[in-house]
Amino acid sequence: MNQDRRDRLRDAAVAVLSEAGGRGLTHRAVDAAAGVPLGTAKNYFPTREELLRAVAERCLEQYRELAARLAGAGPGPGDRAGLAALLAGLLRDTAGAGRPRVVAYMELQAEATRRPWLAALLDPIAAADFAAFGQLLAAAGLPAGPERARALTLALHGAVLHLLTGAPATLAAAGLDDLDAFARGLLDRVCPGPKEEGP
Amino acid sequence: MNQDRRDRLRDAAVAVLSEAGGRGLTHRAVDAAAGVPLGTAKNYFPTREELLRAVAERCLEQYRELAARLAGAGPGPGDRAGLAALLAGLLRDTAGAGRPRVVAYMELQAEATRRPWLAALLDPIAAADFAAFGQLLAAAGLPAGPERARALTLALHGAVLHLLTGAPATLAAAGLDDLDAFARGLLDRVCPGPKEEGP
Repeated sequence: MNQDRRDRLRDAAVAVLSEAGGRGLTHRAVDAAAGVPLGTAKNYFPTREELLRAVAERCLEQYRELAARLAGAGPGPGDRAGLAALLAGLLRDTAGAGRPRVVAYMELQAEATRRPWLAALLDPIAAADFAAFGQLLAAAGLPAGPERARALTLALHGAVLHLLTGAPATLAAAGLDDLDAFARGLLDRVCPGPKEEGP
Repeated sequence: MNQDRRDRLRDAAVAVLSEAGGRGLTHRAVDAAAGVPLGTAKNYFPTREELLRAVAERCLEQYRELAARLAGAGPGPGDRAGLAALLAGLLRDTAGAGRPRVVAYMELQAEATRRPWLAALLDPIAAADFAAFGQLLAAAGLPAGPERARALTLALHGAVLHLLTGAPATLAAAGLDDLDAFARGLLDRVCPGPKEEGP
């Protein structure tokens, strides 16, 4: 088995799941998307469950790369504006370059409601997110107890869902039509400074 | 066309989408789940898009029933504990009796990333949620500006996702292994009273 070809097939599987949904994720579609001879995906990932696993493992790798970049790029102490800009950038990526990966991840989460092995595979990705956002709060010198990290992380997870669907009334109701203002407002609510208090 | 049979088919379509995913949502599976002769679902909902629309419309109706119940059952002024109990009850329902509806809704959201007509159909459901939670905050006499309602609603949407998947490390990291404590903690973060301030 060739590692380059395996990686290409995995990236193709992420793209197919994102563009065609669980129903479209077939070996034939992955072969076509990867531009390899028919039957290749089946050689590398014999069952549909193994195709799903390949997508999940690729998402996990991509998540780790992103987390490592974030850990290096975190804003310094007192830099509330820098942290807000970083969060807005993450959300912007979800609606832009990161969209295939994030839609594929959303499909995996739906499949995971019926597949304990897949839920177990995704578990460390989602759990690590809570720790990562807690560390970003702490690095920016903001109050960073577990409840604050939870509220921030969960609100970001909810925001990603709505950004992917992109329905206008929902985006407006969520304040997601202006991502910079959204990120500042969310930080102000989760970690209010003296001037962010009030009604 | 018979309205009772139509309703039975729509409920069956919700159950099939929840239990078998987008890939399993076929006319044949809906006929079997509804216990009606083969070909019936195809008579009522000729295309697969119309099956998806039937699921979305049923979810919208169920959401409206739930919202009407909530509006009547909202806690009175000053009743922070009552509001926390109501939120915990909503989350508990997601993991219990409401699970088929909520998993089906999650599948619809994933399908909506590729279908603008479906995103438009779901848009009022999600948008109404922000208003409903804002009204609950206001009815409980808590500060209820749009940023607070947004943070609360988005965090609850994120929480629902993780409850459906049920992965243990994620539930622990999110604090979702104790729904009552979770709801109290989330309210304390989003609408801190004088004693909930601090680090």
